[in-house]
Amino acid sequence: MDRTFPSLLARMQELKDLGGVIGLATWDQETFLPAKAEGARAHQLSTLQGLYHERLVDPRLGEALAWAAGQKTLDADQQAMVRVLTHERDRAVRVPQALVKALAEAQSHGLAAWRQARKEKRFALFQPALERMLALRREQADAYGHDGERYDALLEGYEPGMRVSRLTPVLTALRDALIPMVATLAAAPRKVENLLEGRRFDTEAQWRFTLKLLAAVGFDLEAGRQDRSIHPFTGGTHPQDVRLTTRLDETNPLSAFFSTIHEAGHGLYEQGFDEAHYRTPLAAAPSMGLHESQSRLWENVVGRSRAFWEHFFPPLAQAFPEALAGVGLEGFLAAANRVSPSLIRTEADEVTYNLHIVLRYELELLLIHDELPLSEVPAAWNERMQRYLGVTPPDDAQGVLQDIHWAWGELGYFPTYALGNLYSASLFRAAERALPDLNAQLRRGELLPLREWLRVHVHRQGYRLPAEALIQQVTGRGLTDTDFLAYLREKYGALYGVKL
Amino acid sequence: MDRTFPSLLARMQELKDLGGVIGLATWDQETFLPAKAEGARAHQLSTLQGLYHERLVDPRLGEALAWAAGQKTLDADQQAMVRVLTHERDRAVRVPQALVKALAEAQSHGLAAWRQARKEKRFALFQPALERMLALRREQADAYGHDGERYDALLEGYEPGMRVSRLTPVLTALRDALIPMVATLAAAPRKVENLLEGRRFDTEAQWRFTLKLLAAVGFDLEAGRQDRSIHPFTGGTHPQDVRLTTRLDETNPLSAFFSTIHEAGHGLYEQGFDEAHYRTPLAAAPSMGLHESQSRLWENVVGRSRAFWEHFFPPLAQAFPEALAGVGLEGFLAAANRVSPSLIRTEADEVTYNLHIVLRYELELLLIHDELPLSEVPAAWNERMQRYLGVTPPDDAQGVLQDIHWAWGELGYFPTYALGNLYSASLFRAAERALPDLNAQLRRGELLPLREWLRVHVHRQGYRLPAEALIQQVTGRGLTDTDFLAYLREKYGALYGVKL
Repeated sequence: MDRTFPSLLARMQELKDLGGVIGLATWDQETFLPAKAEGARAHQLSTLQGLYHERLVDPRLGEALAWAAGQKTLDADQQAMVRVLTHERDRAVRVPQALVKALAEAQSHGLAAWRQARKEKRFALFQPALERMLALRREQADAYGHDGERYDALLEGYEPGMRVSRLTPVLTALRDALIPMVATLAAAPRKVENLLEGRRFDTEAQWRFTLKLLAAVGFDLEAGRQDRSIHPFTGGTHPQDVRLTTRLDETNPLSAFFSTIHEAGHGLYEQGFDEAHYRTPLAAAPSMGLHESQSRLWENVVGRSRAFWEHFFPPLAQAFPEALAGVGLEGFLAAANRVSPSLIRTEADEVTYNLHIVLRYELELLLIHDELPLSEVPAAWNERMQRYLGVTPPDDAQGVLQDIHWAWGELGYFPTYALGNLYSASLFRAAERALPDLNAQLRRGELLPLREWLRVHVHRQGYRLPAEALIQQVTGRGLTDTDFLAYLREKYGALYGVKL
Repeated sequence: MDRTFPSLLARMQELKDLGGVIGLATWDQETFLPAKAEGARAHQLSTLQGLYHERLVDPRLGEALAWAAGQKTLDADQQAMVRVLTHERDRAVRVPQALVKALAEAQSHGLAAWRQARKEKRFALFQPALERMLALRREQADAYGHDGERYDALLEGYEPGMRVSRLTPVLTALRDALIPMVATLAAAPRKVENLLEGRRFDTEAQWRFTLKLLAAVGFDLEAGRQDRSIHPFTGGTHPQDVRLTTRLDETNPLSAFFSTIHEAGHGLYEQGFDEAHYRTPLAAAPSMGLHESQSRLWENVVGRSRAFWEHFFPPLAQAFPEALAGVGLEGFLAAANRVSPSLIRTEADEVTYNLHIVLRYELELLLIHDELPLSEVPAAWNERMQRYLGVTPPDDAQGVLQDIHWAWGELGYFPTYALGNLYSASLFRAAERALPDLNAQLRRGELLPLREWLRVHVHRQGYRLPAEALIQQVTGRGLTDTDFLAYLREKYGALYGVKL
């Protein structure tokens, strides 16, 4: 048995290396994989994931972790490594192999059924697959264990430490504040238009501008790369090998710019992990919500701000002299920040976005609790869309079938997007307090002081603390919607000329 | 214990998947890996290789293979799978872990010493590392086992089934035929010049032309890709995911064209494996020499032929109207086929190339046999260069230190290049007999009938037979220099207007 920390560390490193290689194979799948190789890659990934699982549940690792948990001589970081890996391992061990297999099959089947249902715009075609997936996920939640709230056990997979009892009051208050805010903005006398519509923006020039943005935020292209993919994402194999993708759309340059800044936010987080944590469980974010806080902070709080574009609009106008003719800074800011209740979550603005999330969170709770007949899900979706956003999907494809998450069985994932938004505003508020010159720096295009502050207070911490404890440590208080709502009120009140 | 073929097959598939992922991580290392990620990638590769080795030497695999070897109900392909994997496993099992580790350290140290020695052009700086490596490789050869000829045990790692007793007479005869041929060509009254020197060829146009070449030879870009790297190579993860690289040099377009055709030859082999063999040990070439026969056949026998360029020179001239002004087909063929004894193997022409190989093979035998004091290696190298090619390296960097192979401990590898050349000529001769219209097809740019013939007779065979047995089956006789020498005499006699 391994009764030394170095031998336990070697197991941690092996797991991290395997995770890195899974990251490479996944990144490659979305960027450079030849079309005919999809089947081969699925086999390769399945083999890698099987090996990862085998190593993780290896009883000898369990014994080594149990031994290490009792060692008082380990330093704080070593103890945190043991804690984090034990948590991951305990969850993996609790799910029986037969259930792991059934879930994988249900995912594969669910994905196919969802694609077909979406194509035919009929939720009924997806319903049996979703029913099967929900039954399995409930079973999995019970295998993980919980205090009577099954959803907690699923949430734990994305947002360790978060609980329904903590989350529901915050998201409900957020919802109740946002609904009237959306209505007020819709009724505002000042109209905010998107002047970019109908114009064409050369995609090569867009690409070059995204590289300027990466340089400005301090994403290290010697420790990462940017490529193109259909759906932008951040992947990679290691903090020194962080891979972003962006999407280039000739008719919508905002897509590339904000995708790049969003993914760079994720990427800066990964690149910012402490070198001492490389190849250990601490070189990781403590939660999806905290990871998302970094992408949202850069994309929205910084990247859609007036201060940011006061510096970056002139070079942008220079890069697109014809396409941006007559737009100007004000026109561009309006296009980037226009609030408009819409059907599709991924296209939603900052104000309406969280209402899409709350809707999904509420339905997920009902589904996991088995309190909503599946045949009524589309109606429940549409009714909430109308109530929260004032719009009703014309069909299921633009409604309940729009996201891949449920097909994939990812219940518990959606709320982390809202947590990311809330945390991003709280962190930026804390940064403003710590860096009195921050706004002036942004206006001068100096983004590195903010990156450095985030690096020290968030990135380098890695997985030492759970997400909310880290937020508490950095901002002085835990999860709250106060900073986010204040941010929206100030920014959108000014943009629309109304009091929110 | 696994006493069914499907469970053994699952182990084969897992190994092949792991091998594929090692292929991906290696390919990525040479193409897209960020500079700072080199250390992380070395760790990831080491972890993957360790897992591969662990699975390979797993006693349960040994038991399953032993069981399968006794099963009469397996079909011929299944028996071949068992034979091939048993061979690979037996070799891996025979090398003690301590020696594996010592070899890896000697490689790493050897590489560093070689780089430094090459930089300073002093073999003496590399000598201690080479001495250590030779001692370890002799030890490894003895661990593998042999009939008194240690070199055989190393050769077996690259060219299974080949023996020094078989190889030396062929390579010696080849040497003795080539030396006077080179002299005759040097003295030929007709001069063959390289008119391309001093011209500049747009690298983007070169790239586009390499894509045309790939399409023409039938390399499937939906089951593979081409990228750029410093040293061209063929990698990938699976027969449907074959990855070539090429090199673009503004001053030397032949580098890109012939690199692409060469690697496409390797790539067509990989893409041509039988679907029934995917993810099994049979989806592999039986030897490096046979793999090289495919690249050499396409690069040299086809790609440097008059027939080939009768079709492809017109579009080439159209792609480079200024750079090729005044060159013409004859001038281009001369540039592509000029024979000129030179110092560097990788830049050598078809006639002199094998002399570089024979020189290395002879020295490797002396080194493994411990019959040449290491301090005398540079002198032995230079003396042979003068005797075989009539040139003497001005320093060790352009002589004995030019190749990475010995630093990496790859003794036994060089002769496979010569085998590739010999096999390529024999295979092409056989193709000419089978396809009476072949030459006319080449002149029309119709390369698919040749690819199809190779696919049926070589590629789809995979690793069913050892290399020479396959050559025997396809050409009617085994290893010989007859076809290669006849090919050189005919082609270069005509080009230089001499009788060879």
